[in-house]
Amino acid sequence: MTVELICVGTELLLGNIVNTNAAFIAEKCAMLGLSMFYQSVVGDNQGRLEELLRTAKERSDVIILCGGLGPTQDDLTKETAAKVMGKRLIEDERARKEIEEFMAKRSRAITENNWKQALTPEGSMVLYNPNGTAPGIIMEDGQTSVILLPGPPNELVPMFEEQVYPYLKERGPETICSKMVKLCGIGESSAETKILDLIEGQTNPTVAPYAKTGEVHLRLTAKASSEEEAYRMILPVEEELKKRFGSLIYTDDPQMTLEMAIYELLKVHNLTVTTAESCTGGLLAGRLINVPGISECLKEGYVTYSNEAKEKLLGVPAETLREHGAVSPQTAEAMAAGGARAANADLCIAVTGIAGPDGGTKEKPVGLVYMSCYCRGKLYTEKNQYTGSRSKIREYSVASALTLLRKAILELTD
Amino acid sequence: MTVELICVGTELLLGNIVNTNAAFIAEKCAMLGLSMFYQSVVGDNQGRLEELLRTAKERSDVIILCGGLGPTQDDLTKETAAKVMGKRLIEDERARKEIEEFMAKRSRAITENNWKQALTPEGSMVLYNPNGTAPGIIMEDGQTSVILLPGPPNELVPMFEEQVYPYLKERGPETICSKMVKLCGIGESSAETKILDLIEGQTNPTVAPYAKTGEVHLRLTAKASSEEEAYRMILPVEEELKKRFGSLIYTDDPQMTLEMAIYELLKVHNLTVTTAESCTGGLLAGRLINVPGISECLKEGYVTYSNEAKEKLLGVPAETLREHGAVSPQTAEAMAAGGARAANADLCIAVTGIAGPDGGTKEKPVGLVYMSCYCRGKLYTEKNQYTGSRSKIREYSVASALTLLRKAILELTD
Repeated sequence: MTVELICVGTELLLGNIVNTNAAFIAEKCAMLGLSMFYQSVVGDNQGRLEELLRTAKERSDVIILCGGLGPTQDDLTKETAAKVMGKRLIEDERARKEIEEFMAKRSRAITENNWKQALTPEGSMVLYNPNGTAPGIIMEDGQTSVILLPGPPNELVPMFEEQVYPYLKERGPETICSKMVKLCGIGESSAETKILDLIEGQTNPTVAPYAKTGEVHLRLTAKASSEEEAYRMILPVEEELKKRFGSLIYTDDPQMTLEMAIYELLKVHNLTVTTAESCTGGLLAGRLINVPGISECLKEGYVTYSNEAKEKLLGVPAETLREHGAVSPQTAEAMAAGGARAANADLCIAVTGIAGPDGGTKEKPVGLVYMSCYCRGKLYTEKNQYTGSRSKIREYSVASALTLLRKAILELTD
Repeated sequence: MTVELICVGTELLLGNIVNTNAAFIAEKCAMLGLSMFYQSVVGDNQGRLEELLRTAKERSDVIILCGGLGPTQDDLTKETAAKVMGKRLIEDERARKEIEEFMAKRSRAITENNWKQALTPEGSMVLYNPNGTAPGIIMEDGQTSVILLPGPPNELVPMFEEQVYPYLKERGPETICSKMVKLCGIGESSAETKILDLIEGQTNPTVAPYAKTGEVHLRLTAKASSEEEAYRMILPVEEELKKRFGSLIYTDDPQMTLEMAIYELLKVHNLTVTTAESCTGGLLAGRLINVPGISECLKEGYVTYSNEAKEKLLGVPAETLREHGAVSPQTAEAMAAGGARAANADLCIAVTGIAGPDGGTKEKPVGLVYMSCYCRGKLYTEKNQYTGSRSKIREYSVASALTLLRKAILELTD
């Protein structure tokens, strides 16, 4: 089954916003085993949209359109799609009522325009929208399914997950199931090399690597006649990945992030952690605090951007800073040990480096970052050399520091 | 002049990556006054790419292709584009030499495949690539310009800015110049309402609002026969914006960020600042430390996620926490004053709130965030109510805190 995506919006053609909807929908369609050969963006222009829709209808089984369902005269997606599918627009009573309620709850006045949003193509499925005034639509004509979704991601994402995904899954030729195995502490190309035989020899199930900052995610997908059968097919491949990657795998739960996995470890082993940051300057603590509930384990963190602060807050000896410099394994270790002492925590993860663009030397170039993790008396220290912009170097440093923190906890609790 | 964008890559069709190149190129083309009516994404498939290219050639003056210039058999963009433009591929000596040098510098072995990247369509302009092995290409046939760019953003962005932008600018029918006026402390719809007459009545120059987290950017663009003339036309509109928005405008330099503008103010007035963060947990310090050189003004920051840490590191009275709670204006103010004292800084910006998803009550719902800025004895305190996910609430809190910090500095130095 082939699917094609058309995003409608002048703001995309002007580059005002990044098209995150396209990546979201494409990933979901891949999970469903649908083949997507084309994505397009057009503006709010009836002629061009109609032409594109007619072309799409010739070549694809499912057409997903996002955007252009708003209340203004410019918003033409529904009108154009209904025309191409040969459907009349009629008012949907429940849609009208929901718009009324939505606006009343927000004390917003309803204008005559708003009722346009309650019009739906006859015989279509209406996807009610608790997060906005534009309902989604699914239209079929026996040959093609056309799915209309509102543009704002906070409306589109839940509507897709709750209403469109099950619709597509049911209509798919087979049941598709997938699992995500997430790795940290290994680069994308090393990870790929280790499983090239699994990637290349694959037909069903398939293994697909997704590179993230400091992480690699491997999606396992199987097609079968039932969900049970699909997961049964995935199992031996997952086992094989566990054998090859061991503790580099931090989760097989698609919702879990690296910081969440670390929080789970801290909680289970009743450990506390603190942070001591120089070049990352708060971003590492910021990522850990992404996890709701981490206050049990992380009480405080230190941003020690100056030498003075490293001495004052972490007790790094002036001598260490003078002899080895702020960017050195010695300073990283003194920061880690000092941070744990100051916060009275079991662990402290410390980062010091040169994020650039200035401040590099031949011996200590931009991108050189030392990190050390103090863990109940032991120190785990790492040297990293990154390339890229200041913000990239800082982002990668945070990812590596989380990986080092996880490693220290695993060794402690092994 | 019309321009069309075609991004080539299976990774986009599978949703492995977000298409940031499209937004980047679309924004640059808008700045150049080019009309973009279509963006498309296709996979590494010669048949589909060729068909799309022929369609694009019928309807657009300039076609920009990104991706598919790699060394493998899958990478077909250059071969397909040369075919459609009727050009033969010949080896470019300099491109071959640069590939050799690039690989030698990184101690990477050159495979036979790599030489494919030195082939260029005859008579084309070669865009040499210091950041990778795939040169870009500009081909013309008297009717259409086809521009090929490598897919990785760290190669595409500098190549576009340094080589493609000047090429397009020169070929444009007129000179296009633009300025960016950046606002903080006002929402997009309020900003738009204030200048609706300027937006709607516009033809040349034009005013276009771009919404960013906690900021609104207004792009002023003018077309004229010379650069001087274009800027002369922009000037009165910019003056009008300054009159209407006053100190909400933090810069008219397109490269400057809000944290950079704050750093400039701190430096000029010889002020030091520190941070005291609860729910943002380091992200605020992290954003300030985005600015290289800020170590002169920001020595340290405090992540005080627990009540205990608020007392210990910032000296917030236990009584204040007990009576008013951690999320209260009183605690925010005690954090700000205490942080400035602890760091011996002129200013301290403090944030405390409920980022959710749990922990909200009827009186203190999720998204309630107090922030206070201590500024040499004065306190500026603000209550905010955000909606959205935990990470959205934290991101908006950081943006508002920076805006409040800027306001306090401006009042001090006024």
